[in-house]
Amino acid sequence: MTSEKKKFGELTKAEMPLFIDLYELTMAQGHLERGHNITSSFDLSFREMPENRGYVIVAGLEDVVDYVESISFEEGALEFLQGMGFKKSLCEYLADFRFTGDMRAVPEGSVVFQHEPIVEITAPIVEAQILETVLINQIGFQSLIATKAARIYDTVQRYGQGQSLIEFGARRAHGVEAGIKASRAAYIGGFEGTSNLAAGVMYGIPVMGTMAHSWMQSYETEEGAFESFIETYGEESILLIDTYDTITGAERVKEIVQSKGVNIKGVRLDSGDLVSLSKQVKDITGELGIYITSGLDEYKIDQFLQDGGIATGFGVGGNLVTSREIPVAEIVYKLVQTEENGKKTPSMKFSDGKRTYPGEKSILRIVKNGKYQKDVLALKGEELEGQEQLVDIYNNGKLVYELPKLKAIQENAIESIFSLPKSCKKIENHEPYKVEISDGINALVETLL
Amino acid sequence: MTSEKKKFGELTKAEMPLFIDLYELTMAQGHLERGHNITSSFDLSFREMPENRGYVIVAGLEDVVDYVESISFEEGALEFLQGMGFKKSLCEYLADFRFTGDMRAVPEGSVVFQHEPIVEITAPIVEAQILETVLINQIGFQSLIATKAARIYDTVQRYGQGQSLIEFGARRAHGVEAGIKASRAAYIGGFEGTSNLAAGVMYGIPVMGTMAHSWMQSYETEEGAFESFIETYGEESILLIDTYDTITGAERVKEIVQSKGVNIKGVRLDSGDLVSLSKQVKDITGELGIYITSGLDEYKIDQFLQDGGIATGFGVGGNLVTSREIPVAEIVYKLVQTEENGKKTPSMKFSDGKRTYPGEKSILRIVKNGKYQKDVLALKGEELEGQEQLVDIYNNGKLVYELPKLKAIQENAIESIFSLPKSCKKIENHEPYKVEISDGINALVETLL
Repeated sequence: MTSEKKKFGELTKAEMPLFIDLYELTMAQGHLERGHNITSSFDLSFREMPENRGYVIVAGLEDVVDYVESISFEEGALEFLQGMGFKKSLCEYLADFRFTGDMRAVPEGSVVFQHEPIVEITAPIVEAQILETVLINQIGFQSLIATKAARIYDTVQRYGQGQSLIEFGARRAHGVEAGIKASRAAYIGGFEGTSNLAAGVMYGIPVMGTMAHSWMQSYETEEGAFESFIETYGEESILLIDTYDTITGAERVKEIVQSKGVNIKGVRLDSGDLVSLSKQVKDITGELGIYITSGLDEYKIDQFLQDGGIATGFGVGGNLVTSREIPVAEIVYKLVQTEENGKKTPSMKFSDGKRTYPGEKSILRIVKNGKYQKDVLALKGEELEGQEQLVDIYNNGKLVYELPKLKAIQENAIESIFSLPKSCKKIENHEPYKVEISDGINALVETLL
Repeated sequence: MTSEKKKFGELTKAEMPLFIDLYELTMAQGHLERGHNITSSFDLSFREMPENRGYVIVAGLEDVVDYVESISFEEGALEFLQGMGFKKSLCEYLADFRFTGDMRAVPEGSVVFQHEPIVEITAPIVEAQILETVLINQIGFQSLIATKAARIYDTVQRYGQGQSLIEFGARRAHGVEAGIKASRAAYIGGFEGTSNLAAGVMYGIPVMGTMAHSWMQSYETEEGAFESFIETYGEESILLIDTYDTITGAERVKEIVQSKGVNIKGVRLDSGDLVSLSKQVKDITGELGIYITSGLDEYKIDQFLQDGGIATGFGVGGNLVTSREIPVAEIVYKLVQTEENGKKTPSMKFSDGKRTYPGEKSILRIVKNGKYQKDVLALKGEELEGQEQLVDIYNNGKLVYELPKLKAIQENAIESIFSLPKSCKKIENHEPYKVEISDGINALVETLL
């Protein structure tokens, strides 16, 4: 059976619940058959920090909640599974599936470090496993993008010139969903707008844009193209001046603006030696805004500003929405405890270079004068100082968390970035932020070894 | 206005058509107001080959066709646009929007090189622009993944040991859509299965899998975990043996298999020195299959096989589904010709380092004895030798192309990979495939310069 024809961008009811790795259901059937659907706790965490990242801004929890709230295995999905050879008993279980467990998580916009559980789930093992694929998929990708955005935001902040940051990545993202969620994650990480109208309608993110080279080329002369645009958009116009020659373009803009007496928003530079061109353009166009695009990221913006480049705003695309150097989030979802007949047994994985820490946890953050000093990864209930970073999301399958507004998430992220030690925020050669492992966890590891 | 609440993974009717960059509609309004909706031709192409890629396998055309067939701007979308300040005249135009132009494209599974139009659209400029964001978004990302898959497939082929290739990347992809489409693209590039059930139900791709560490950890002993799995799955079982110690795991599997007299499918190795471990495991488990996972890609598989590692199959995840080293497809969609009052005017972009070739084109491939010799990028209609790679997809807005079955697309890809010169298939330090620019194009460029 393959599924019915549908509109572009839609998953049918049969398909949505099946975004799951086969082995989750293989194991589910095994656990159910053997009466082994025991209560288990799983941690979602970065085993190591992503390369060259001193911190990770969490994003994606809202989608995880949406998923948990909406997951249901309907007729088409169950038919497919039976056709694959899954037993009727599993399909009956799935037909009634809903999440009945507990979930704790670090709120979106907060920072986490290696080993810290971003999400911790305690539930019958089959339920906990069924969530795995989407949990990793949503939180991993979105956190990478929010973190990349935060690095760009922080770079601009360091120079204190107040440039605006606009995300232009829809076309370079890995699909439509990725484009929309990348816009949201970029906004969380400090961007103020997006070119993506779908992100505007879905999340209320301000939508911004300029014009393409095709507008310029579609008129016989550059002057004609500029004039036509200004006649339509007046003061809102941002004119792309590199289609033929950036300096000539700037001179033509100056002339048109003067002769028409109209005060446009600015010009956009998209190629060439941006530092030198931006300075020359500034000399020509005076008070007009200068918007810079063209393969930007935190490294290029840093270099541009260090070299004295002049900009009113930066448009950042593909490097941001794919987290270019680190597009794979190596987060793992590992069993840390099982519970049978009321007895809790901590669990860890011993594999070479892939060890995990056992037990249900707390992330305790030591904060002084608004600055983060260090974290302590502790056992839940271990009495230690610090601000707990994990909050309750679900209790016994009931959503007990009010999802914050996107603007509040962005504010949380900006405050988090501000509170981090400078040394761990460096975009290259950062010093790692200190995460201590508590005596409680260390003792548990010793026992299990 | 933000849009209504919906299920996870769904775009509402208001949202779908708005996956588009603001400037496309800004320009649309400008062109329409100024009576400048002239017939235009656009090329979608790689200006340069992606770094370290000797060829690109095309994927994503099916989704482009789905998009063109289903795009419609409904009430919610139009309200949002009016709320943003777009004029009623634009909204009326969009309310009746459908694609009325021509589209030619290189079929999925075929190879392309720098400058070659993967898709060429000739339509009123507003229509051609409205398609831009989704065109780049779908073809770019999917082609990167199909190409990465092909490189892995070709690496395994070179050693001639017939290992199976399974895509395990759902959790590392950039969202649900990306995961599903990456499964499809990986299959196109030569993979034989996926762990992703949604890709199974949507595309009929064989779904495969093993077990997770959590299964192992959920039992008190490793033997107990193995036995339970075998009791449920018998001969289908693939047992993960690295949770505690790979060699001890292998010995336990051998013992259980012998004492139970059951013939399981094999074991999975997911950590440690995979070459050395695979050899040791082979000595212990004899005829059982050995499945290798753990951060694989074409480079690691090449090294593994070169070093004499033993494997029945490889499971490849995050590095494949994100095209890890090259996650951004630098494809561009550029105006190459305008037409007013029956007069065709070729067009090109002059920007520093970002030049494009003007005119409607042909890709002519010279093939001898089933092997690709070189391509000639020519003007459409230029009389030259070679097999034309572009086929008609739409004529005057009518779909004239029958979308091939996925299996046929995979066969096309495998034949294409086979037909390429070995030198351009090398996974490192490849030699570029020869793409000649025709005299016709060169003469046109001279004129325009």
